[in-house]
Amino acid sequence: MIAVHLEDGKISVRRTGKPRRKPGEALIRLLRGGICNTDIELLRGYYSFSGVPGHEFVGVVAEADDPHWVGRTVVGEINLSCGKCVFCDSGLARHCAKRSVLGIVRQPGAFREYLTLPQHNLHSVPENVPLEHAVFCEPIAAACEILDQIHIAKGARVAVLGDGKLGLLISQVLSLHGATIHQYGRHRRKLDIAAKTGVDGRIASRLPAAAYETVVEATGSPDGLRSAVAMTRPRGTVILKSTVHGLVGIDTAPVVVNEISIIGSRCGRFEPAIALLSSGRLALDEMIDDRFPLADAARAFQRAQERGVLKVLLQD
Amino acid sequence: MIAVHLEDGKISVRRTGKPRRKPGEALIRLLRGGICNTDIELLRGYYSFSGVPGHEFVGVVAEADDPHWVGRTVVGEINLSCGKCVFCDSGLARHCAKRSVLGIVRQPGAFREYLTLPQHNLHSVPENVPLEHAVFCEPIAAACEILDQIHIAKGARVAVLGDGKLGLLISQVLSLHGATIHQYGRHRRKLDIAAKTGVDGRIASRLPAAAYETVVEATGSPDGLRSAVAMTRPRGTVILKSTVHGLVGIDTAPVVVNEISIIGSRCGRFEPAIALLSSGRLALDEMIDDRFPLADAARAFQRAQERGVLKVLLQD
Repeated sequence: MIAVHLEDGKISVRRTGKPRRKPGEALIRLLRGGICNTDIELLRGYYSFSGVPGHEFVGVVAEADDPHWVGRTVVGEINLSCGKCVFCDSGLARHCAKRSVLGIVRQPGAFREYLTLPQHNLHSVPENVPLEHAVFCEPIAAACEILDQIHIAKGARVAVLGDGKLGLLISQVLSLHGATIHQYGRHRRKLDIAAKTGVDGRIASRLPAAAYETVVEATGSPDGLRSAVAMTRPRGTVILKSTVHGLVGIDTAPVVVNEISIIGSRCGRFEPAIALLSSGRLALDEMIDDRFPLADAARAFQRAQERGVLKVLLQD
Repeated sequence: MIAVHLEDGKISVRRTGKPRRKPGEALIRLLRGGICNTDIELLRGYYSFSGVPGHEFVGVVAEADDPHWVGRTVVGEINLSCGKCVFCDSGLARHCAKRSVLGIVRQPGAFREYLTLPQHNLHSVPENVPLEHAVFCEPIAAACEILDQIHIAKGARVAVLGDGKLGLLISQVLSLHGATIHQYGRHRRKLDIAAKTGVDGRIASRLPAAAYETVVEATGSPDGLRSAVAMTRPRGTVILKSTVHGLVGIDTAPVVVNEISIIGSRCGRFEPAIALLSSGRLALDEMIDDRFPLADAARAFQRAQERGVLKVLLQD
């Protein structure tokens, strides 16, 4: 079989043996993989990862302990946790200190013909969900995580900063939740995608000061947090989604003076993401800018790094 | 009468006329004033304030519209708000966008023989509270503000970073609330003051990683926030009390990955602070390092800036 390999800032494709699944694990044949900004960051040295990248995928189960999984189309939670600690025990396995993370931390990823993952990480994909939508499950779950962390009232006005892949999913998820979303970005084409779910997309020439109770920072830029704090009302909340490499300079005075809450937000539960996928209400086709066979992963990663390009898929 | 004057990084004492109170205001004779770190920051150019500094005070009402106030010993809330906006209307006048702030923003402060303040900013000081304790009301209210912002369960273990004036008040307030406080500082003498209210003071040689659900950052140092985030468990909370001049460099990755909440915290309600003062349980005498007559304010400010010095009082 073939597997994508990431090392020293380069992507190559290698021939390797099929991975052997351990007890409790499923062997999964890859159907679609999605290149995420985190994969690009790995390529740039973030987390000093080398090996098989990839954590956004949909596949079909080839082998598993429990025969009811075999043949099913699945997506999979990316955190592999110990199952014993206080976080695992309280429904927050995503925060297990001993976790490895598929294609990110000490765990070969999904961009290979076959991958393994613990069976209890898997979720069945409903039949009405196209493969090219199912592959978005992990970042949609990351968008849904916001609603697990804070209460956003239906009808509440929320600003989303950034119109990249994650920003577009966040604005759509929050809009479908029932909030009124003002999304600030730089690309009319991208903003128009989220507009299909009712998002009000605005070209970010001038950001309004202290105008929102809740602001989601998803720019991926070091300046994003500063802008988000400035746009937030006293006692309001900034959801911080961007992970930026290195130190970010922020003026903490407005955070203290205006008593703003900054809440970091990462991975989420797959259940609400799958329900949203099954509803068919998300605009996802428009977010796919290109597709490559797995063997052309190097070109796919090139394409994914081009300015303005949204999702690039790998396929079997 | 005399008034302290702050301008261009210098403290002087001037002779001026008694201020005239407007309708709704009280005229207050100063009994004690406390020099706060914010006053020192004003001296260094923070908020570009010039005029009479001072916001920590206790005084006696000389004149007021309502005769029942006259002759009373009072402390006063420092935010002068419009009384009409959505914040004023919802009990958060401290966040009124049009506010001036006693001795900090567009409002002559308390370090003068007589000051004025709206009558509705005043709170009576209970008879059993000594003047030298009452003068701590404002920073105690700022410490109490934490309990208005987040729920801290009785018995919960909380870390407080910093053993300066505010750090000592915060650790005492949270300890008397019923939390188990580990206070990390650099001065055994200071840590021993908070120990009188049950605080476990620790010399901060090595800070434990991801050890606390709640960490209060009150170091006043640009490194404090970074340390606080590192000490906080996944999904935990950092209360940010320090205002630091200029940009603070933080690595946002652990905030996002560990989904940490950073909550800015400023002024608080006076009611719980007065109740605590009246309980007589706070160790405050030990926090007073020096006293000067108002006429010697320049020396008092010098003294307050000496390394390791805690509260310096001005008196009539």
